[in-house]
Amino acid sequence: MGGFGFQLLGVDGRARRGRLTTSRGEVETPAFMPVGTAGAVKAVTPEELRECGADIVLCNTYHLYLRPGHEVVAELGGLHRFMSWDGPILTDSGGFQAFSMAELRELDDRGVTFRSHLDGSMHLLTPAKSMEIQSALGSDIAMVFDECPALPAPREAVAEAVDRTTRWARECREHYRGPGVVFGIVQGGTWPDLRERSARELIDLDFPGYAVGGTNVGEPREEIARIAALTAEMLPHDRPRYLMGIGRPEDLVDAVAAGVDMFDCVMPTRNARNGTLFTSRGKINIKQRRYLNDPRPVEEDCRCHACRKYSRGYLRHLFLAREILGSRLNTIHNLTHYLDLMARMREAISAGRFEAFLEGFRSALPRGTPRREGIGIDPANDQPDAPCFELLSRSRHRSPASSPVSCMTTMWGWRRRATALASRRKRSTK
Amino acid sequence: MGGFGFQLLGVDGRARRGRLTTSRGEVETPAFMPVGTAGAVKAVTPEELRECGADIVLCNTYHLYLRPGHEVVAELGGLHRFMSWDGPILTDSGGFQAFSMAELRELDDRGVTFRSHLDGSMHLLTPAKSMEIQSALGSDIAMVFDECPALPAPREAVAEAVDRTTRWARECREHYRGPGVVFGIVQGGTWPDLRERSARELIDLDFPGYAVGGTNVGEPREEIARIAALTAEMLPHDRPRYLMGIGRPEDLVDAVAAGVDMFDCVMPTRNARNGTLFTSRGKINIKQRRYLNDPRPVEEDCRCHACRKYSRGYLRHLFLAREILGSRLNTIHNLTHYLDLMARMREAISAGRFEAFLEGFRSALPRGTPRREGIGIDPANDQPDAPCFELLSRSRHRSPASSPVSCMTTMWGWRRRATALASRRKRSTK
Repeated sequence: MGGFGFQLLGVDGRARRGRLTTSRGEVETPAFMPVGTAGAVKAVTPEELRECGADIVLCNTYHLYLRPGHEVVAELGGLHRFMSWDGPILTDSGGFQAFSMAELRELDDRGVTFRSHLDGSMHLLTPAKSMEIQSALGSDIAMVFDECPALPAPREAVAEAVDRTTRWARECREHYRGPGVVFGIVQGGTWPDLRERSARELIDLDFPGYAVGGTNVGEPREEIARIAALTAEMLPHDRPRYLMGIGRPEDLVDAVAAGVDMFDCVMPTRNARNGTLFTSRGKINIKQRRYLNDPRPVEEDCRCHACRKYSRGYLRHLFLAREILGSRLNTIHNLTHYLDLMARMREAISAGRFEAFLEGFRSALPRGTPRREGIGIDPANDQPDAPCFELLSRSRHRSPASSPVSCMTTMWGWRRRATALASRRKRSTK
Repeated sequence: MGGFGFQLLGVDGRARRGRLTTSRGEVETPAFMPVGTAGAVKAVTPEELRECGADIVLCNTYHLYLRPGHEVVAELGGLHRFMSWDGPILTDSGGFQAFSMAELRELDDRGVTFRSHLDGSMHLLTPAKSMEIQSALGSDIAMVFDECPALPAPREAVAEAVDRTTRWARECREHYRGPGVVFGIVQGGTWPDLRERSARELIDLDFPGYAVGGTNVGEPREEIARIAALTAEMLPHDRPRYLMGIGRPEDLVDAVAAGVDMFDCVMPTRNARNGTLFTSRGKINIKQRRYLNDPRPVEEDCRCHACRKYSRGYLRHLFLAREILGSRLNTIHNLTHYLDLMARMREAISAGRFEAFLEGFRSALPRGTPRREGIGIDPANDQPDAPCFELLSRSRHRSPASSPVSCMTTMWGWRRRATALASRRKRSTK
């Protein structure tokens, strides 16, 4: 089991302070994992990630499988050596991206057949294949291959996804050969009883950690936080809980308050490249003219390299001049902001003053900052590349006419067709 | 004079070992200046520049004047503070870019009137204005505002440019108010006697340093090295000599052998972003399939961060995945390669074994590497963004149909029109 462990160091209300142990080092929780999609956290080096405060990074199986290929990464010494990051790595299963990014995809009980968005080649991703890829990459925490239906969806479709997710989770456990561990993923959409069934079935399989999946895939925004809290409650106290693909700083705070331990999101890195910078008093858009000759750092008491060395005026200039250095410095600031937020939460929980932290955090945000409009999606961000998920913005890039909603509608349309096909097949084989 | 000085520490043949002193620190010569066009050497931080071995950087007056504006830079504490580089900065005069990048431009005895390529606003750049801008930026070495005619050009046009360059050089001296010093620029095209006249007239004005200008602007390629060597000979021994905008590693070596002390070129940084990496055995194009699973660094004994930490396979992957980190690591490698080459030349000159260095350098290059096909332009680079000058590739970006040659033709057509207009005006005022 690759020296994996989880220690619950303390609780404060529902908020938890813990420590993951892996053969690549420890991860203090609650933890935020910067996203290194294709084997690089965009614009920054591993040394800079450490300086920002990262203990662990997430990489995407789908991207690395297609390019350069998991065998190539293995030949080059595995993902850690490939990207020169010696800390723990969590990889997702590839299923979510195969559902959402590939041009053509078909789901059946075996897995997902899809056409690569890079070269048009056809691929079949199955639970066994996903485990093989994640093993070849050498990830410390692999994720089970799950079915993540787009919402809104009829209850039967979500129930069926729960069934399939459990079956596939079992297959994943059987096929996984290390070097790390595998986490289960709870599905069930917005139905508490389906969430509960999914959680129970996965707990029976005894995974060393559990993720809350299937949030932020089209359901009404206020549902996401509710579901995350609800699902966290169902999971065993002695295992880490990971809310996938979430979100804004206020979403992380809410989810930690609900008992979640781990997070990942492209928001700090992607928004940085779009010029949106996080501060404890809300976001600033660095391209605004008011920063033209502003000599102040992004945030006065921020310890990051960008704030120690550069003015808002310079960062604005770099953004407008499309200088790569601008993306770098903005990324360093946003990651430091996220990772310092996690550190402050850990301290508050350890000290038994998380409630006070919550109040301080919320009162520092500008009035009118909506707190529940949706974890992970940021409607106030006016950049074309803003939504949190790779899924949404990539789909939009391919087809300017589509929106996150229509992308989800398409996903759901496909899901419905697949379900119909599957039941027809079932009927014909009876 | 801003504490400026130049010390000739030794010579070996015509090659010179020297040291520039400025109030911002010393520069060991022969020196290569990385180009930080808009107040940032693309993709890298000042800390990384130091680690690569840079003593001094070059920034472009034209770019910084248009965006964010020299007054803004001054308000933010000057260019050094703006970009967080505490070493010496050399700025060009802005004339070359105004001639070549702006949409509409007209030359007369006052200066260049041009339309900004950014927002269409009209500007008049004069010798006095160029000095004002470079003073506001706070550069340690400012360059005179010169006329740089595109070649081929009739002798009369080049002679006229020499006259105007001398007149403008005098104006620059009169208007410059510090904080640094101003270098003169020798024009004269490919005519030795015009070069000599230009050099003599500028020497009479007693500049603390001299540049060889007007090379690599359309003349036959073999001419560039000849002109550089010829002009270097005409310049005073106790002043630094700067060959502007040149070039490939082999061009730097040839020019150092001819007695040149200072260089700048976008080639190491631009080619890096295009995936072309310099090694002592010639260039490699990192996107080639042969590097797919190559575990070796770009160059075995290179001390740079990219070579110490990453494989060719990873750098190829980053390039194909268009990761910003790829541009960063490639830039760090190429700059280190250039700056280490300068350091090796300095050592060789100091030790009196520059001839042996030359032989070793040339024999390490792959057979058939053309040595004189043109300083600064690299015909073997198959990237769309390859030529050395901002001028060439920017023009090409704006108009896909044009090429470096047609861009030069256009420049020349404009120059011819301007000359015709000027002589008509002269005639009419007689």
